[in-house]
Amino acid sequence: MKTQYYTAATLDGFIATEDDSLDWLFPLGDVNDTSYPGFIKDVGAVAMGSATYEWMLRHLIKPATGKGEPWPYDQPTWVFSSRQRELVPGADIRVVKGDVRPVHAEMRAAAAGRNVWLVGGGELVGQFYDAGLLDEIIVQVGSVTLGRGKQLLPRRITTPSLKLISVNQVGTGFAELRYEVPRAITSDASRGPR
Amino acid sequence: MKTQYYTAATLDGFIATEDDSLDWLFPLGDVNDTSYPGFIKDVGAVAMGSATYEWMLRHLIKPATGKGEPWPYDQPTWVFSSRQRELVPGADIRVVKGDVRPVHAEMRAAAAGRNVWLVGGGELVGQFYDAGLLDEIIVQVGSVTLGRGKQLLPRRITTPSLKLISVNQVGTGFAELRYEVPRAITSDASRGPR
Repeated sequence: MKTQYYTAATLDGFIATEDDSLDWLFPLGDVNDTSYPGFIKDVGAVAMGSATYEWMLRHLIKPATGKGEPWPYDQPTWVFSSRQRELVPGADIRVVKGDVRPVHAEMRAAAAGRNVWLVGGGELVGQFYDAGLLDEIIVQVGSVTLGRGKQLLPRRITTPSLKLISVNQVGTGFAELRYEVPRAITSDASRGPR
Repeated sequence: MKTQYYTAATLDGFIATEDDSLDWLFPLGDVNDTSYPGFIKDVGAVAMGSATYEWMLRHLIKPATGKGEPWPYDQPTWVFSSRQRELVPGADIRVVKGDVRPVHAEMRAAAAGRNVWLVGGGELVGQFYDAGLLDEIIVQVGSVTLGRGKQLLPRRITTPSLKLISVNQVGTGFAELRYEVPRAITSDASRGPR
């Protein structure tokens, strides 16, 4: 059972534009050609931040229109948000806030031996890293640059460094990079900007 | 003959810390295990920005001490700088400023069929990209994150996207990614932040 940050990012380290657009991402390839189908099968619990959840509501689910897609995850999903959120009928969504550690314990129990997926954003994943709870980072590096946007992971992880486990080319649009994450040194010096 | 941006960067898209430190880079592996020895043999002319040149003087050449390393390039080197710079005895260094296009023409002629290497930084390479003069980006993605620092390439390149040509794992410290660069669309809309 691992806690994994699985995401797409640009070559210059952004997961979305400053206004949370992913329009740069979808022309780059078909998700079914990537490691995603194999990855999601082993996931038992999902966590995401409020901006990611908001993006899914607005672009995929569109609850007000009744014409959106169904909620994509069978797994229970924890949404970190400081305020109450609109829920999706039929989806197991739990809105939480505060310290990631007790939530992670709850997610582990629910995952029952399968993995915990941190969808993003970067700051939420950073909090799991700070707490020593992040095991792997799997990035689909898309063949674009944005120059500015939402950061992949706003932390300094250098000593010890990440450990590159594998690389995989997916057409001309993606390089999939898989890393093991060292245990965070729990001093302030190990933390990046807030 | 190609114009290539060959550099190391972090997973989150930085080529140096905000104060131009590369201390995160050197523990990640031996440059001789990477594509660098093969790459540099085909280079006929070198360009760099003033911060990169300053870094080399301070950390490698150390002209004031007389105890530094020799200038590492046999190839003629163009340094883009708005002011005069200290030169290195015995090295073919040409300090230039302004539009990259006439300088690129001069570099091409000097390279005599070999490649033009843009060492960095990102803003200088961005100017070559804007002028439609950048053919390839080769990034050694180091297994670290910095959270903040000097950007790999402060431009938006999405439509058309880069084209991933190859991926190569170098130990656990580097993933080498090689991209072809599309011709820049020369409208302001294609440009990133300045």
